Amino acid sequence: MLTSYSQSLDILHSHIQTYEKIENIALTQCLDRILATDIKASTNNPQFPTASMDGYAIKFSEQDEALSIIGEVPAGVFPSFKIQNKECVKTFTGSLMSEGCDTLVPVEKVEVKNGIIYIKEKVSQGFAVRKVGESYTEGEILLTKGTKLGYSEIALLAELGYFHISVFAKPIIGVLSSGSEIKDLGESLEHPAQIRSSNHIAIANMAKKLGAEARIFPLLKDDMQKTPSVLKQALNACDILVTTGGVSMGDFDFLKQAVKEHEIILDKVDVKPGKHIKIAKFEDKFIFALPGFPYSAMVMFNLYVRELLNAWFLQEKDYVFKAFASTDYKKKSSHLEFVACNVEFKDGKIYANLKGKKQGSSAIINNLNHKAALMIANDDIKENDLVDIVLML
Amino acid sequence: MLTSYSQSLDILHSHIQTYEKIENIALTQCLDRILATDIKASTNNPQFPTASMDGYAIKFSEQDEALSIIGEVPAGVFPSFKIQNKECVKTFTGSLMSEGCDTLVPVEKVEVKNGIIYIKEKVSQGFAVRKVGESYTEGEILLTKGTKLGYSEIALLAELGYFHISVFAKPIIGVLSSGSEIKDLGESLEHPAQIRSSNHIAIANMAKKLGAEARIFPLLKDDMQKTPSVLKQALNACDILVTTGGVSMGDFDFLKQAVKEHEIILDKVDVKPGKHIKIAKFEDKFIFALPGFPYSAMVMFNLYVRELLNAWFLQEKDYVFKAFASTDYKKKSSHLEFVACNVEFKDGKIYANLKGKKQGSSAIINNLNHKAALMIANDDIKENDLVDIVLML
Repeated sequence: MLTSYSQSLDILHSHIQTYEKIENIALTQCLDRILATDIKASTNNPQFPTASMDGYAIKFSEQDEALSIIGEVPAGVFPSFKIQNKECVKTFTGSLMSEGCDTLVPVEKVEVKNGIIYIKEKVSQGFAVRKVGESYTEGEILLTKGTKLGYSEIALLAELGYFHISVFAKPIIGVLSSGSEIKDLGESLEHPAQIRSSNHIAIANMAKKLGAEARIFPLLKDDMQKTPSVLKQALNACDILVTTGGVSMGDFDFLKQAVKEHEIILDKVDVKPGKHIKIAKFEDKFIFALPGFPYSAMVMFNLYVRELLNAWFLQEKDYVFKAFASTDYKKKSSHLEFVACNVEFKDGKIYANLKGKKQGSSAIINNLNHKAALMIANDDIKENDLVDIVLML
Repeated sequence: MLTSYSQSLDILHSHIQTYEKIENIALTQCLDRILATDIKASTNNPQFPTASMDGYAIKFSEQDEALSIIGEVPAGVFPSFKIQNKECVKTFTGSLMSEGCDTLVPVEKVEVKNGIIYIKEKVSQGFAVRKVGESYTEGEILLTKGTKLGYSEIALLAELGYFHISVFAKPIIGVLSSGSEIKDLGESLEHPAQIRSSNHIAIANMAKKLGAEARIFPLLKDDMQKTPSVLKQALNACDILVTTGGVSMGDFDFLKQAVKEHEIILDKVDVKPGKHIKIAKFEDKFIFALPGFPYSAMVMFNLYVRELLNAWFLQEKDYVFKAFASTDYKKKSSHLEFVACNVEFKDGKIYANLKGKKQGSSAIINNLNHKAALMIANDDIKENDLVDIVLML
């Protein structure tokens, strides 16, 4: 009996240890990197009451009075004023409020004559004043380990004064594509039985999208003698080795044999496409031996290699969710099927449709174009059924 | 009367011309770049019937017979066999089918004795044979101008034999942050009225996420004399200049004045946050003068600069959609409000919730963390209302 998909994920997870490779990098270089530590606020923000508009800082109780302007506080200047009765201070967006003031009257609600303001339109107490700790308070955990650093998280770190930051080091994903029929980019084909390799570049790009570094090894011809040592060398030069081709039932599937010299943790899964996948471990490294058809290889990478990286990087599995099927789907095999589809948002609902997706063998790369997703078919699917979706990288 | 949000987008679009900067880059370097040309299939794929599994190529009509193996076709070898009656050819995944064969019997469904196969389990006609043109047919348009190149599009281009590819050149987004209160990364603060600049790094990262190149100019102090020439120099060095700060109602808002020396196409919009935004044009360049509060600046960038890049790069506006409100929201102002929220997928529906989002001034950077979205509040919102959502970069 083949291992089921859900069992296969459990097996993979049971072999995943905590990822502990951490590096310190400049804040300017950490877009889309994963934070390896919690970040706390070292002070309140703002530290003092701050004007959120341009206007006059006053005592709320004196809005009906004529108030003398005793000075101004441009942004960036620490206020030296303490207002007495019937006084106010001209205060700019981002400036601190002067002592004794609790409210800011915006400049457009005020008439100014000879250094005295008359308030034309009243405001509520505390108007346009950012309270101490409004953004965050001292000691508050602002970002947790595992946070993916987008532009706003990085802006926050900049505001907090960080210049270097601890992130997870990028694991190196080695890519070893095999097959005597494949030629590399830029090589010419000698006859129509040869094809150009696309797996190596696809996997390298998927690795980058996952936040890993990619290392593409030279293409491997089907060669029983050389395969084990090539595999070993490749494994030395990466944290995760992803191979393509050479794992199915053929006599030339030498990769399968070479991989099997390591600790196999998974050998075939009851899914379509990609059931011939093998996963092995060698010390703390993983080998994912994916099938040779690019479509299958890309799907398997999204299902398994991504699962590992997701666990290492402490990411939520937010790319798996439910959607309504826009059309019927008739299952083609006895395996759990991952069917290329499009995800569509409409009136608050999520739909999975098969527009432009060809049904055929598992070799059609173009089915994965344009941010495709996979619809999981356990059984035949009827229109409007709620189905499980895996959004591809 | 302030310009409405929808009018403001119309105005912006009326000033956008076709983006025509194109460059040719190596296929290995074009992840997430935008294709600047249509791509057609130069041949059928596959060109010849091809085995999708390991097995024996046979005539479908002869499944009941004992068939002699006349040879084998490993992947990558052009088949030289033409089968006669009661013959078959051992054929591997990805190999071409030999002449005279129309069906592949997988290796596991066959018994082999002394060079003769006996089929244990019958298959349908054409089984495990990839038809000519199954993936695509000669002349078919496979990718259109404006396609964002993900790993599968790039894999397809590799398969098609491309090595260099025409993509839109990255526009240069210049970033000019202003304000006497801001200090740069790594500089120490002298007193609590100073803050660390976060806008420049936020905008540079948003620019990168949009597929542009970012050029950060030195921070600009509030200085009436220098501002116009600094603005001019910055504009010379980029395609789009994004400034922050210096655009509201204050006496020190020199950027506002300097920007106004150019062709202002938009001056304030009836939105919150960010209503003081100004957009100007100078020849074919754009200036976006955003407010100084980082939260407002990031929101405005997402609403306006992204709109421009999206139009230049021929992208669909797939980040705007509808969701169900998870909670009530009471509008705080008379303007159209963009409220930071989270997008949640549940049972096929999209929800917008305000979990962890602080209500306060428009200065709270952390509201935008963790892939935030903006809920558009035209009016008070009730739980379960269908609301418009802008997913942030």
